[in-house]
Formats: sequence, C-alpha cells, structure tokens
Amino acid sequence: MTCPVQFTVEHGDRHSSARAGRLALRNGVVLTPVFMPVGTQGALRGLPPEYLPATGTQMILANAYHLHQRPGEGLVEKLGGLHRFMGVGLPILTDSGGFQVFSLDKKEVSEQGVQFRYQLDGKQTFLSPEISMSIQQSLGSDVAMAFDECLPGDAARAKVAASVDRTARWAERCRAAHHRADQSLFGIVQGGVYPDLRSRSAAQITGIGFDGYAIGGLAVGEEREQMLDMTAHTAGLLPSDQPRYLMGVGQPQDLLDCVCRGIDMFDCVIPTRHARSGVLYTFRGRVRITDKRYRRDGYPPDTSCGCTTCSTFSRAYLHHLFRVGELLGVTLAAIHNLAFFSQLMAELRQSILQDRLAEFCRQIERVYPQKRAESLPPEQE
Amino acid sequence: MTCPVQFTVEHGDRHSSARAGRLALRNGVVLTPVFMPVGTQGALRGLPPEYLPATGTQMILANAYHLHQRPGEGLVEKLGGLHRFMGVGLPILTDSGGFQVFSLDKKEVSEQGVQFRYQLDGKQTFLSPEISMSIQQSLGSDVAMAFDECLPGDAARAKVAASVDRTARWAERCRAAHHRADQSLFGIVQGGVYPDLRSRSAAQITGIGFDGYAIGGLAVGEEREQMLDMTAHTAGLLPSDQPRYLMGVGQPQDLLDCVCRGIDMFDCVIPTRHARSGVLYTFRGRVRITDKRYRRDGYPPDTSCGCTTCSTFSRAYLHHLFRVGELLGVTLAAIHNLAFFSQLMAELRQSILQDRLAEFCRQIERVYPQKRAESLPPEQE
Repeated sequence: MTCPVQFTVEHGDRHSSARAGRLALRNGVVLTPVFMPVGTQGALRGLPPEYLPATGTQMILANAYHLHQRPGEGLVEKLGGLHRFMGVGLPILTDSGGFQVFSLDKKEVSEQGVQFRYQLDGKQTFLSPEISMSIQQSLGSDVAMAFDECLPGDAARAKVAASVDRTARWAERCRAAHHRADQSLFGIVQGGVYPDLRSRSAAQITGIGFDGYAIGGLAVGEEREQMLDMTAHTAGLLPSDQPRYLMGVGQPQDLLDCVCRGIDMFDCVIPTRHARSGVLYTFRGRVRITDKRYRRDGYPPDTSCGCTTCSTFSRAYLHHLFRVGELLGVTLAAIHNLAFFSQLMAELRQSILQDRLAEFCRQIERVYPQKRAESLPPEQE
Repeated sequence: MTCPVQFTVEHGDRHSSARAGRLALRNGVVLTPVFMPVGTQGALRGLPPEYLPATGTQMILANAYHLHQRPGEGLVEKLGGLHRFMGVGLPILTDSGGFQVFSLDKKEVSEQGVQFRYQLDGKQTFLSPEISMSIQQSLGSDVAMAFDECLPGDAARAKVAASVDRTARWAERCRAAHHRADQSLFGIVQGGVYPDLRSRSAAQITGIGFDGYAIGGLAVGEEREQMLDMTAHTAGLLPSDQPRYLMGVGQPQDLLDCVCRGIDMFDCVIPTRHARSGVLYTFRGRVRITDKRYRRDGYPPDTSCGCTTCSTFSRAYLHHLFRVGELLGVTLAAIHNLAFFSQLMAELRQSILQDRLAEFCRQIERVYPQKRAESLPPEQE
C-alpha cells in the first residue's frame, strides 16, 4: 500500500526513447529528466539546504544505510522525519542500503538478509528487506527503494542469475513490508551485463508491481558501452507510463545518452564530490579551479551561469580559497556544480519538448565527449 | 590624507564610559558598539558572504598579512578590490600585519621593519609601515590599521618602552605613506600593562592624528584584570569624538566590560573558531553541541534566536553533523555564532540608548560569568 506516483509523460522524442515528464510526489512536483544530488549522511556536503532551490535542485537522495547507523531512523522519525531533520523542503528519495552493503568486502549474505560491520565504526549490523523498509518508512522519504542484491560489474553469469532471483524474492518481501501510504516504493531491476538476465529481472520486478522502476547494478565497473546497452535494453522492458531511474549515473555525457535510452531519473555524487577537489562543471567543459592558469583569472567560473557562485565570485577567488584550504571554496564549488547539473537537465528537458534533442546532445558532446568517465576521487561518500 | 571617519556618539551611559554611536564608512553605516568577525584569508570560514547580513554582521576584519602572501594585494586590486573579490558588501577593516608578524618566533626587527618567513610556506618576507600601507591601500578596505610593534603580555618594561617609541615612529611613517582618500586610517596605542607607557603611547599616537584609535597589545596573555584596567586607562586618553577599537577581544563577558570602559569596536576569531569545534554561543550560555546530551534534543540550538540555523535545525541535527564530520555543521554553527554576537551587541547598544546598561550586563553575566576566558582551540586562524 503506497502512494501511487503521479507520473505524466508530457512529450516523447521522435528519434530516441527520451521523454519529458512530470513526477508528483508528496513534497512537490519534479520535472523529468531529473538529476538528484546525494546527501549521504543527511546533508549535502558543505551546502546549507536553503541554497538548494536556488541551484535548481528539485529532489535529493539520502542514504538509509548511513542514517540507520547515525543518527538512527528512530530519532529522525521522533524529530518529525527526514525533511524536517535536514531542513529540506524538496522531495527526497532514500536508497535501501543494498548498494552500500554489497560494496563491503566482508559480509554474510543469507536468504534472510545481510550481516556486516558498519564501515565507519565496525558495529555489527543486519539488513533485510523488512528492516530496510522499516528504516525508510521511519525516515519518511518521498520515495523508498527496494532492498536488492547488487553484484560487481565483473560478476560471473551464474552468480548474477542467482542474485536476480534473490532480488525478486526480496522485492516481494519489500512490497509486503511497505505500508506507508504517503511514500512511494520503487523496485530495482538487476541482471548485470547479461541481457537475458536483465529481461528476467525486469519481468519479475514489474510483475510484483511498484510505483516506479530503477535499474541497479550498472556503473559498477563494467564498460561504458555495456552500461548503455543494458540501460537501453532494460528501460525498454519497463512500463512506459512509470518513472525509470538509473542509479549512480553520472557524468554529463552519460546523462544525455541514458536519457536518450528512456531514463527519467538519476543520482550521482559527482557534483558534490568533485566540488571538494575543486572540479567545476561548466558549459565549456570541466574546470579544475586549482590549476595555476586560474590564479589571476577575473572571470566567473562559468560565464554563462547565473548561480550565486558565478554571479558573485571570480575564478581567481575560488582558486585562492582552494589554495589556502578555505572551506568556503567547497561550498561555492558545490553550489555551482548543482546549478550546472540542474541547468543541464532543464535544457535537456526543454530540447525534448521542442524536438531538438539531437542538436542539444551534439552541443554538449562537444565539451563532454563520450568517453569513459574519469575516475572519481577515492574519498568515501 | 584619508577619508575622515564620520563618527557620532548618539548616547553616553551615565554610570560608565559606554556609548552608543554611529560610524559612517565608505561601504555603509555601522552602529556601535560593533563586533567584527574575522575573515582571515579573504573568507569567513565556511560561510558564504551572502549570509552575513542575515546574521546581523555589520563589518568584518580581513588580514593584510595573509592576503599579501596569498593571493597578493596586486591581484585583489586588479580584480576590483577586496570587497568585490570576497563578494562582501559590508565595510571591511584590514589589520596591518603587525600582530601576526610579532606572533612569529623567528623574525628580525629593525627600525626599517620586520624580516620573517611566512608561517605557511616559509617564504622570506619583509614588512614595514610603508609596505603595510601599500598593501592595505591596494586591498581597498574601509579602514586600514597602522603597522605597530606588538609585544607579548609578559614583556619587560624596558622592552615595552622601546616598542612604544618605535610604534610611534612607525605610526608617523604610516600616516605619511597613506594617501588613499576613500580609506580611513586608525592608529594603534601600545604600552603593555604599564599605565605610564600606555599614557605615553596614547599621547604620541593621538598627537600624530588618526581617524580612529585602536588599543593593541592586550588579550595577549596578561591577566584579565590587567586587560580591563589597561583598556579603561587607555580609552580615557583617547578623543571622545572618535571611534575606539580594542583588538582581539573577545568573549561575551569581555565585550560587556570593555564597552563599559569606553570601547566601540571589537574583533575576535571566537565565533568562527569555536563554531569549528562545535561550540555555540547562546543567551543561556555556551553549548558544546558535540556533547551526548544533545543527541536526541529536538530544540533549536538557541530557543531565543531567530537565525537561519535556529529557525531551521535541531540540536540533534547539529550534533549529528559534527558526529559524522559533515562540513555543514561548521557552517551552521558559524551562522548561529555570528548571529549571537551581533544580537548581543545590538541588545547592548539598545540598553545604552535606554539607560539600562547595568541591568543588561547583570543579565548576561549570569550566563557568561566574568572569569578568565576558557582558552581557544589551538588551531591557527
């Protein structure tokens, strides 16, 4: 029993699977395609939430895995839920913890769930479909995600096949354990890089029936082409009248390509994580603001951007802040990067509505060529 | 040749030397007594400048010593001056570098100036009255400070006497080297804890003539009572129609006591530095938000405060942010602390205007007892 997502496809592209839509959630209407920045531990790194609307951010992601440990979903619920706790008025999607748990080296997986030590303090923890549902319902996000099994990109076929079936059984249990009427629940399709397993998983998960569908287990180490092929293949198997969410993607070029393959929603740590190392995304490409060439540069970080950072500060000032190790640099870079990703998605949406998507994609690809994304800084997010 | 400061004493307290005034500077009118937070390296740690007005902050301090090294005053000037570089519309006071230079262990002091290695990168640097004036005029602050010799609180009388005379000779050179018509220049009175040397210095510095007068060389290790006595003694020797600025103070109880001794302006790193370690100043006393007792506390940090932090977030949320090491905690704590210091000074001013200063002081002293201030965290600011 969930709040059925009100999703409307406003316009579909004639030459690709791209679509512009409108997703009505408890805390607001989200225009799709949408990019969700990640507030790992109940906060977007260094970014006061009142800045979020000004960056054009429509919706954010928070991590049930981390919030369960600290401060605990019980406290968040007692204090009025995640939105009130974080001071965020926008819709929030919580991930189930599946991705984080399966990223751990040491864990014991059983049919019941996963036993592991929390990576930050070593505390013994058990997560299962029922526990994940309980956590997310207590947090009170707009969208909860099913608890799935997520394998690495190079997992062998037999292992992936088994995990697809387990993910389906767990999805059934999530569905049964979810009772919060004002929260939507999305299912997650797995299947690695095997088209037939993706098909099997899509059939199983859509058979159970969710308010929206995510594609998991991609952008976890496989080749870019495989990621795109699996996205196209899987998106095509999902109901066209429900939102499709590709988890953990990504770079500007990946967003474009995956929107063209039918994806409506994305999340990634890139804008905030890269902000911390001084990488700014602009409509002329990536700018490493720590580079010496910006030391005396009086232009705004992105001359075509109207965000607070670009309308107030110079590249030289941002360069200075990073050089002297001043926290404010990270905040200003994060504000700009969120504004860039919002603007990119807004223009992408506009180009779909105006039937000029291909032209827009070519324009962006000139500055963000379709190559394998550069690796992220290794810091944990 | 400087822009003469327009300073008006609006009302003087009948029972103390406290006064409420109005200081007109190039970038705005400042109501006194005023507390200036410190933006060491051209930024207030973790605090986007657009937040400053909302915290009630009227004026800030920036460090000529640090900005000279990085990014260099030439660049700041080329990019339109310090206000534009930092994105700060409020009046800015720059210190001369004297205090920082004399805090260094290794330095060579001559009549000409001071040779030292910059503490952060070891670069050989020379500062003199003329160079300090040149730096501050390039930065374009509203108020520049004379380059003085500042000794530790336990310096012997003979040393202090010599430094008083050198400070006077340097003050003459500062006066002669200062030409920027839209910038005010303040002189600094030294003299350690020796009343007669304070008198000599005050006579010398006021004899040269400045737009305002600072009391330097206090809050550098001497006893609190000595600090208060020297403040009262020196303030009484300064022109009553010009602003008086006590450098590097301080704690709420020190601000009250020094306002009662005739001081109009203060600066201190306390609000931002303590914010970084999770110490919040409230009208019920200091709150160490990292303390376990706040873990499940749903109240705002200060129930009587209307700042962004207090009107949006709970103690439990701030506790969580510090516990997980999330940068946002520092930003939110800094916003609150600046709001507290502004509010404290605004209420203090109001109590002077309404002839109820003694009552207000008693009220604040109940939560901030007049004891030796707890030592600051050792981190460099």
